[in-house]
Amino acid sequence: MLVTHVTPESGRVARSATTSSYSITMRLHTAPDHGVVGAVATAIAGAGGIVTAVDVAESSNTRLVVDVTCSAGDADHAAELRAAVDAIEGVEVYKVSDRTFLLHLGGKIEVSSKVPLRNRDDLSMAYTPGVGRVSMAIHDNPEDVRRLTVKGNSVAVVTDGSAVLGLGNIGPGAALPVMEGKAALFKRFADIDAWPICLASQDTDEIVRAVEMIAPGFGGINLEDIAAPRCFEIEARLRESLDIPVFHDDQHGTAIVVLAALTNALRVVGKQLAQVRVVVSGGGAAGTAIVTLLLAAGVTDVVVVDRAGALASDDDTLAPAHRELAAATNPRGVRGDLQTVLRDADVFIGVSAPGILQPEWIADMADDAVVFALANPDPEVDPAAAAKYAAVVASGRSDYPNQINNVLAFPGVFRGLLDARASEVSVDMLLRAAAAIAHVVKDDEINPTFIIPSVFHPDVPHAVATAISGRDSGHHR
Amino acid sequence: MLVTHVTPESGRVARSATTSSYSITMRLHTAPDHGVVGAVATAIAGAGGIVTAVDVAESSNTRLVVDVTCSAGDADHAAELRAAVDAIEGVEVYKVSDRTFLLHLGGKIEVSSKVPLRNRDDLSMAYTPGVGRVSMAIHDNPEDVRRLTVKGNSVAVVTDGSAVLGLGNIGPGAALPVMEGKAALFKRFADIDAWPICLASQDTDEIVRAVEMIAPGFGGINLEDIAAPRCFEIEARLRESLDIPVFHDDQHGTAIVVLAALTNALRVVGKQLAQVRVVVSGGGAAGTAIVTLLLAAGVTDVVVVDRAGALASDDDTLAPAHRELAAATNPRGVRGDLQTVLRDADVFIGVSAPGILQPEWIADMADDAVVFALANPDPEVDPAAAAKYAAVVASGRSDYPNQINNVLAFPGVFRGLLDARASEVSVDMLLRAAAAIAHVVKDDEINPTFIIPSVFHPDVPHAVATAISGRDSGHHR
Repeated sequence: MLVTHVTPESGRVARSATTSSYSITMRLHTAPDHGVVGAVATAIAGAGGIVTAVDVAESSNTRLVVDVTCSAGDADHAAELRAAVDAIEGVEVYKVSDRTFLLHLGGKIEVSSKVPLRNRDDLSMAYTPGVGRVSMAIHDNPEDVRRLTVKGNSVAVVTDGSAVLGLGNIGPGAALPVMEGKAALFKRFADIDAWPICLASQDTDEIVRAVEMIAPGFGGINLEDIAAPRCFEIEARLRESLDIPVFHDDQHGTAIVVLAALTNALRVVGKQLAQVRVVVSGGGAAGTAIVTLLLAAGVTDVVVVDRAGALASDDDTLAPAHRELAAATNPRGVRGDLQTVLRDADVFIGVSAPGILQPEWIADMADDAVVFALANPDPEVDPAAAAKYAAVVASGRSDYPNQINNVLAFPGVFRGLLDARASEVSVDMLLRAAAAIAHVVKDDEINPTFIIPSVFHPDVPHAVATAISGRDSGHHR
Repeated sequence: MLVTHVTPESGRVARSATTSSYSITMRLHTAPDHGVVGAVATAIAGAGGIVTAVDVAESSNTRLVVDVTCSAGDADHAAELRAAVDAIEGVEVYKVSDRTFLLHLGGKIEVSSKVPLRNRDDLSMAYTPGVGRVSMAIHDNPEDVRRLTVKGNSVAVVTDGSAVLGLGNIGPGAALPVMEGKAALFKRFADIDAWPICLASQDTDEIVRAVEMIAPGFGGINLEDIAAPRCFEIEARLRESLDIPVFHDDQHGTAIVVLAALTNALRVVGKQLAQVRVVVSGGGAAGTAIVTLLLAAGVTDVVVVDRAGALASDDDTLAPAHRELAAATNPRGVRGDLQTVLRDADVFIGVSAPGILQPEWIADMADDAVVFALANPDPEVDPAAAAKYAAVVASGRSDYPNQINNVLAFPGVFRGLLDARASEVSVDMLLRAAAAIAHVVKDDEINPTFIIPSVFHPDVPHAVATAISGRDSGHHR
């Protein structure tokens, strides 16, 4: 099913696997010969595509109308598939539609009323005049707002559109499909009512103030895809000023899942967190949060490598955020590039850029090396190539084993925070959440290709929520 | 069904009618005698309550557990009903619960996913990696955001909590149940996805900036329950800066419905808008918008009366907002209090305070007087008393004929704005919306007690939307 191939020079992944995220439906007009379906399927397979559905929409004496749905690797590949089908004698590609775009038409989330509004009596309870008494009850006892309104179950998914997925600074409007998707996941995995808030400013002070102003209606703030180092100050200031929890998922969600995966990778290779040497490639939002959580979990030897090499506390050319990171890490004062720093390391964690790790360098790591190549969509090293040298390999990709996916963390984290009516997120909570995810994988299940549960594992959100809130969430799904 | 009675001295309504908005359920423990249910119903009716449901929850040899639901007029009345039941031999009121509060537990709205999230393929289209292509499409063509996201169907219901219903400045948290109710109504009547935004500031500059910042994710802004005169500046500045429509419902929603009702009231009494003398009591947000729309509709003689009497352009003690209002109205330069100004007027429109209009004053108005007493929950004059002197009476109350209710306007208004992808709201749109509501009442239906359709009339939202957008909305419900 993979059409992936790696260019040896760079280690970069040259073409993605076919994926449902690049799924097209071609409407074909053909001669009235049902055998044509076989020819089409053969042509698509021959061009490296995967046919997932064939529907004959119309059949007459003069022609067939056939809808063929297939997965491609990317836009160029989709064009190749179309050309391959168009080249078949007697087949005309009438229209090509992109299933992902069709799915997005009109947006992915909606607001529903939980109360009946059938008649005047219903209106008089849900709206005026009845609602006035509920408002006055909250006015008299402000704590009741979480009990009597959606605040008790709602999260704002806030972005400024400055660091969206791997796409960069594409702005708040273009970020909206991602934030909507996140809101849909909040509902699917933790029954939380999340709403996207895409801010038309990338000024730290303005973002902080806007979030403070909208906070009364929400039970939690999920910061998302805000560029570093701005995201650090925004989160710190909001945690200081707000009485609801603030969680930057790109940082802490990633850190939780990485720690969970590392915990289990070390279960597999029989090493201890306190004894391993860890190299983290990337000193941005995710890297910083991962390092902080690893140290809190008991890791003692972490070296952070950025474009310029290992961060060291005696390097006074570092930016302020990196200076802090350097001070907390690199106890042996290592200097040098990634290849140098990797020697004898037990663990590589990449949250940086595609193809920066040559598979052969892993051979110089300690025995039973653990490699997490998490750059998205193209990892630091091709997972299959890395697996030749490492004992355990994980990536952000769904087409390899051991996918590190934030969806494992954030729904349960906020479920737990809301259930506990928490006003803040503590490091202890993050540690407990990571342990909860790790322990979903039982001793008789764990192996080098199964260190992390699937995002669809039904126990995960509940386990995380209970770990966060310290009590049964009642939202076991 | 009414237990309303008016104190003659003040004209104020002393007790509200029984209402479902004040509906309680009493759980009773009684002797095992099913005849007790009759005694309970009799006791409640004797105390002026209305029994709406009786459920025997448990029946044994030793006792019955009975849930009795009944409507009361207000909190004191509910206590009287409880006492009346408690006084019955062999009946113990075990617990009293308030149905309006029960309905509000956990909030009234929720977010749902419109797309399936069953498996990895679904995730890869709705979220990463597929969503990235949708984001890039919007980045390349920003207009597509309305087509590919919830923005095309979403409205922010924005308040600062400074003028909530008749309750005053109760703050953003206490305002949330009202804004949620509004969001539920948006869905119910116009299939719009509205989300409440309750702002933690009452500073004009901060409110304007916060709304500007959240605007990228919404297709329209519904300002709600923001105090005058701040609301005027906020609306004007947002209309200037935003590329999505901004609509202050307390102003323009009210004005639309009032103009619709007045249009039909004049159909009933056979007068013309251009010929009538109108007195508006109250120069706040609603009064100002009503006056503006009436003038745009062709009314030529409007006098606004505030606490200090008629607003006149030669009165230089007026506040700035009132000076503008005075300049546009009162062509005959009338001075004096409400009673004086009302003489020979054809129409009274009250958006001011309870009980300020003595019914007998209506006798001095022109023949076939029209009286709209819209103060909520207690009108300027008891509608039943006013009906002795006026040809047509309307109020904001659901327990009298001719209820003037914004629910007739705002859902259809925003449906039309969203359907047209409008960037602003024009006065022409408001006039067309009012005409559309008026014309839902057919010539063979109209009469002094039916000048305005019910909020549940199925034609209203569609008629308003089509009037606003200038095309068929496709959301006929």
